[in-house]
Amino acid sequence: MARPIVLGVAGDSGSGKTTLTRGLIRVMGDESVTRISADDYHRYERRERRAIGITPLHPDANHLDVLTQHLTHLRRGEPVLKPRYDHRDGSLGRPEYVRPGRFLVIEGLLNFHTERLRTAHDIRVFLAPPEDLRRAWKLKRDCTRRSYTTDEVLHELDLRERDAARYIRPQRAHADIVVAFGPSATADPSHLDAEVLLRDTLPHPDLSPLLGSDRNGPTLEQRERDLVLRIPGSIEPEHAAELEEAVWARMSFANHLRVHRLGEFTAGTDLHRSDSLALVQLLVLYQLVWARATSISGHRPEREQPPAITGADSALHV
Amino acid sequence: MARPIVLGVAGDSGSGKTTLTRGLIRVMGDESVTRISADDYHRYERRERRAIGITPLHPDANHLDVLTQHLTHLRRGEPVLKPRYDHRDGSLGRPEYVRPGRFLVIEGLLNFHTERLRTAHDIRVFLAPPEDLRRAWKLKRDCTRRSYTTDEVLHELDLRERDAARYIRPQRAHADIVVAFGPSATADPSHLDAEVLLRDTLPHPDLSPLLGSDRNGPTLEQRERDLVLRIPGSIEPEHAAELEEAVWARMSFANHLRVHRLGEFTAGTDLHRSDSLALVQLLVLYQLVWARATSISGHRPEREQPPAITGADSALHV
Repeated sequence: MARPIVLGVAGDSGSGKTTLTRGLIRVMGDESVTRISADDYHRYERRERRAIGITPLHPDANHLDVLTQHLTHLRRGEPVLKPRYDHRDGSLGRPEYVRPGRFLVIEGLLNFHTERLRTAHDIRVFLAPPEDLRRAWKLKRDCTRRSYTTDEVLHELDLRERDAARYIRPQRAHADIVVAFGPSATADPSHLDAEVLLRDTLPHPDLSPLLGSDRNGPTLEQRERDLVLRIPGSIEPEHAAELEEAVWARMSFANHLRVHRLGEFTAGTDLHRSDSLALVQLLVLYQLVWARATSISGHRPEREQPPAITGADSALHV
Repeated sequence: MARPIVLGVAGDSGSGKTTLTRGLIRVMGDESVTRISADDYHRYERRERRAIGITPLHPDANHLDVLTQHLTHLRRGEPVLKPRYDHRDGSLGRPEYVRPGRFLVIEGLLNFHTERLRTAHDIRVFLAPPEDLRRAWKLKRDCTRRSYTTDEVLHELDLRERDAARYIRPQRAHADIVVAFGPSATADPSHLDAEVLLRDTLPHPDLSPLLGSDRNGPTLEQRERDLVLRIPGSIEPEHAAELEEAVWARMSFANHLRVHRLGEFTAGTDLHRSDSLALVQLLVLYQLVWARATSISGHRPEREQPPAITGADSALHV
């Protein structure tokens, strides 16, 4: 029996964790994925945190030992009785019986805080948007879906800054993939630039042929042992489609997943699509399907050769 | 590090589990004992069980797999996030972070239902009072402390009978000690007879010298590989005290525990003391302190010789 593959998506509150994973889960299929919010492992209710004077970003405000224990069980294919934190009113409730699907997607604030937690994941993604953008995202989300006032959110952000600097942001050092979405030069809010750090802790698809001459095309930079991929928000849709095609070609055994388009996100209640988000999701999906294939076969199969790509941008092989 | 010793006390609802363990916990000290009710692992709330038409005695109405998982962690000295069932209103609530003490006392309906559960215990005690007595005990308890009406309790008892016969009572076959308290010939309600089956799955103190000629004294009967000890409710207090003394002498390294008297119990809101209860508790305590001593030393030490007992009932050495 192949064991479940564990994807961890860590980052500060409002950094876009759910936006990244929602598209992935949609593609992999609800029935295949068990999605867990590590916020469920909060030790205190919202009112208790206020009384104690602790932020949810502090390790002591979370049952990280229990999270580690549960991830270990789920990764072995065993069920757990998962606690539940309700973001609508900040309360802890009756726990929930969870059986792991083929994939586990764990979003959280402190997923990579300890070595034991880090090794409980197969794929570690850290989201590191610029602080200005994250504050704007968090404000919009918390006021529309978590019944906070704008004053409360801004006050919370200030209170949390110390713990964010101390406990959240240092986790970026332990991720296989670090993603920073940022505002692009274009006026369209759905055109976000993406800077993606691909660490050599995982075998990423060979992106070197991407280094095209197109002014609006993606760029790739070697930074010591890692690679930095920059996808401009202004990328031509045709370029983006070809890039996607090339990554899909590297995992043709997973082509049955190509039912839904990646890249969707909401701003408030408006639905948008972003090519850079789609590409980032695809690079994570690539890791998931390869980890799964490795888990099934018992060894990492040879990476498939990309098929020939025809057309104007044939330089953009992945 | 010595690992925690796990005592399981199983039996039907109202069979006297808490009465047996309360005195033990008092003697061992709250700080040394983690008491867990396996009822916390109920899968459904009371209203849900009614809607589904399932009794809490049915294995499917309990997260027995999670209970097994948690016992395994606690036995290794690891904490768990334990679910919580509130008997006052039959609701499931926010879970509770539990660190194991030196001793774990698990009371429950189905502790010995599976082989994995059985082996998660060091000492297995099953309570098997006559059904008439158990019904009377349950009625009194549920009406005074669990906000049921008498009609509801009697109705529940009928509904549960099938599952009790199918799932609860068969567990007696898997216990190291089976205790049946029953009404004695005396009029005093605090004078309960006790019949104690001591299986050879644990090394019990040598009780053969107990076989005295006293008409009101305890008797011992060999039944295949097991022993049956009968303690009459009418036992003379002096006999009982000597018996207790003899068992304590067999665990003199634990004499610091002799702060509180064993044998207390409540009937409604009245406090009573029973010599037969005290002796049963002491036989269980004997197992606990020896298991602990074995766990600390890494091997089972030689049983200490009983000291000479003087006085009229010197035949009653243990």
